[in-house]
Amino acid sequence: MSEAASILTIGDELLFGDRVDTNGPWLSSQLSALGINTLEHCSVPDNIDLIASAINRLANASQILLVTGGLGPTKDDRTRKAFAAALGDELIFDQDAHQSMLTYFQKREAVMPKVNEVQAFRPYTATWIPNIHGTAPGLNATLNGCDVYCFPGPPSELQPMFGRIVENMDLALKCNSPRRIMELHAWGLPESIAGEKIKDLMDEKDPSVSILIGRSGITARVISSLNETSEEVIVEIKKRWNPWIYGSNEETLASSLGDILNGSLATAESCTAGLIGDLIGQVPGASDWFLGGWITYSNELKQTQLGIEPNLLEQYGAVSWQVAKMMAECACVKSGSSVGLSTTGIAGPTGGTHKKPVGTVFIGCTKNGSTEVREFRFTGTRDEIRIRAASSAIQMARLKCLGLVENQMCWQHGSVFR
Amino acid sequence: MSEAASILTIGDELLFGDRVDTNGPWLSSQLSALGINTLEHCSVPDNIDLIASAINRLANASQILLVTGGLGPTKDDRTRKAFAAALGDELIFDQDAHQSMLTYFQKREAVMPKVNEVQAFRPYTATWIPNIHGTAPGLNATLNGCDVYCFPGPPSELQPMFGRIVENMDLALKCNSPRRIMELHAWGLPESIAGEKIKDLMDEKDPSVSILIGRSGITARVISSLNETSEEVIVEIKKRWNPWIYGSNEETLASSLGDILNGSLATAESCTAGLIGDLIGQVPGASDWFLGGWITYSNELKQTQLGIEPNLLEQYGAVSWQVAKMMAECACVKSGSSVGLSTTGIAGPTGGTHKKPVGTVFIGCTKNGSTEVREFRFTGTRDEIRIRAASSAIQMARLKCLGLVENQMCWQHGSVFR
Repeated sequence: MSEAASILTIGDELLFGDRVDTNGPWLSSQLSALGINTLEHCSVPDNIDLIASAINRLANASQILLVTGGLGPTKDDRTRKAFAAALGDELIFDQDAHQSMLTYFQKREAVMPKVNEVQAFRPYTATWIPNIHGTAPGLNATLNGCDVYCFPGPPSELQPMFGRIVENMDLALKCNSPRRIMELHAWGLPESIAGEKIKDLMDEKDPSVSILIGRSGITARVISSLNETSEEVIVEIKKRWNPWIYGSNEETLASSLGDILNGSLATAESCTAGLIGDLIGQVPGASDWFLGGWITYSNELKQTQLGIEPNLLEQYGAVSWQVAKMMAECACVKSGSSVGLSTTGIAGPTGGTHKKPVGTVFIGCTKNGSTEVREFRFTGTRDEIRIRAASSAIQMARLKCLGLVENQMCWQHGSVFR
Repeated sequence: MSEAASILTIGDELLFGDRVDTNGPWLSSQLSALGINTLEHCSVPDNIDLIASAINRLANASQILLVTGGLGPTKDDRTRKAFAAALGDELIFDQDAHQSMLTYFQKREAVMPKVNEVQAFRPYTATWIPNIHGTAPGLNATLNGCDVYCFPGPPSELQPMFGRIVENMDLALKCNSPRRIMELHAWGLPESIAGEKIKDLMDEKDPSVSILIGRSGITARVISSLNETSEEVIVEIKKRWNPWIYGSNEETLASSLGDILNGSLATAESCTAGLIGDLIGQVPGASDWFLGGWITYSNELKQTQLGIEPNLLEQYGAVSWQVAKMMAECACVKSGSSVGLSTTGIAGPTGGTHKKPVGTVFIGCTKNGSTEVREFRFTGTRDEIRIRAASSAIQMARLKCLGLVENQMCWQHGSVFR
């Protein structure tokens, strides 16, 4: 039988409604991949009694309890005290934990502020867990037979700490029914059509298939037990969502473009204002193929820096396929890149007209002298329009590299301009 | 005294980690604005026993319990049964609820599928709540003195249903102590020092002060009841966190820079690869003051497009204060902007050296011919280093516009270069 876990996330901000908890879902997905069911996910404010009683209750109900937050150095960080109360322990100062914190600061050539010292305390029966990405050590103890872990709240500290625990320690987390999860990410396919295409596959139990919608597009998640093969289902989804699937699991649109580019890229962004560059810059090693680009928000920079002809801007306006085309081509020529990518449009909330409403974006892609421009009518807020434009641009470059320039994309308006 | 509420969100998907629960935070923020504290937010899977026991436990602990999800028409929607079990009731078919559902379909000129009929059942002692945006009626009953509401999961149905309850009904939700919330955002101040500086203010109950850490920096949240004024506390925090506070509530670093810029801005980004431009582009109306910029990832573009002298790159390397200085100055000169902002550094995970480890970033800011460059040693992942560099750059421009160029910033290494 698989293990049963609970997750407790701590922080006033989680109960005021303006901070969405992302640690809980992240931990759940990690546990899920290990074959561990999460029975409950609970959030309580920075209150010692509420934290302690939640720890006690959840430790009684599950074999593993993962706690996040409240290990910082300030007064409203109360997890150490609450954990000690739940365990019936005193808090003691841990010399080794303290030393690890001093080392952390030394490496940064900094002096540890006095206020951080409180983070070296631990409940008497607990052990501390090293934190190589921040000051707060984690904590681990057994309570009523439940293995309880307290992690710092910042994801950049929590995630590697959790990863090392799973990897290195002999613990209940290493259960014997891990599941395999494969995610296939697509961009450019409307949600309703994506669902329709794989409806029958979503009725199966093992492997099970579900659809997630997010900033990275539409994702098909395939979960299978180890004895089942999900290979057939994965192949089937890839076939039915072709050519929109750009990658799997950790891959992003930008990383998958880098994988197939076989050349170099430059950008000329107007309405996306650097967002395409940012998405590319997120990929480690992007400097191998991304030369850089221009953010030409003003018409003047479009002319003086990219070399867009003034009469093109006058005749058609900055938001036009003619300007998008020339921007992509100039980006190539001026940088010497093999591929050029451009955006020009109206992100809103104002600036729309009857003929070019908010959400109108022209995206140009040029490669070895051949250029296509697509007009899009993106829906959503300013932020959504910008991310949809930037992602569609990268997908267009990907399709161009694959020789697929005719497929109608989601939000595309009319056919391709040349 | 203010009311105390709990929130229970239901659904397997919330415990697999792939769906971040947004209903819980939304309800919390609504309750918060009404002066109602949320004591706990809990998520459980679609399991009758787990749902029923969570309803019982939370009803005992609070005056109001808001439940969402599990009211759909399919087999895995189990909230009706679980609510009946918690109440010790039978489920009965409600003729009026059924009629309201038929009307919903009639208005859409559709026939109600047989499968939806189960949604007309309610626990014997519960009343149903009309749903004008979907089929699932809500449910309301009293359990151990606690007012329990069950809402459908889709936000488009939940939110108006909750709104109408608050507006029209005579219920515990209408309490008499709404609160005012003010958030003050800071960048450039280390977390431990931020906490230390306002430690005494964080001991008070009304207004209460707490600290949040996020991508937008460090936030002080001041909550006061209507009879108390928080003005003095806000002034005090502003004084103690001076000059790091850049804005309040919805304001961002980029929007606050736009507010005080009184001129125009251009960027020359290397390691941030467009992220500064993107942060600025997120601000509606940024085109009034943001001209654009260069993403000069490659050394060649630094030379050919910005005009960085090759011998500067050779002598000091691209990651140097000398190059950062010239990048900021060239951005100004070539765009005609009054302020120029540049970044060059090592975002990692590879590329670091002993003298310039991963996280080393030089940021230059020039205004009317005077330039400062700061060296930073950012910690964290590639993404964190990039967002910290971009945010620090915008804060540097803000400080420059305010004539404050000497303050040591968080992660800054050594003093200012000129």
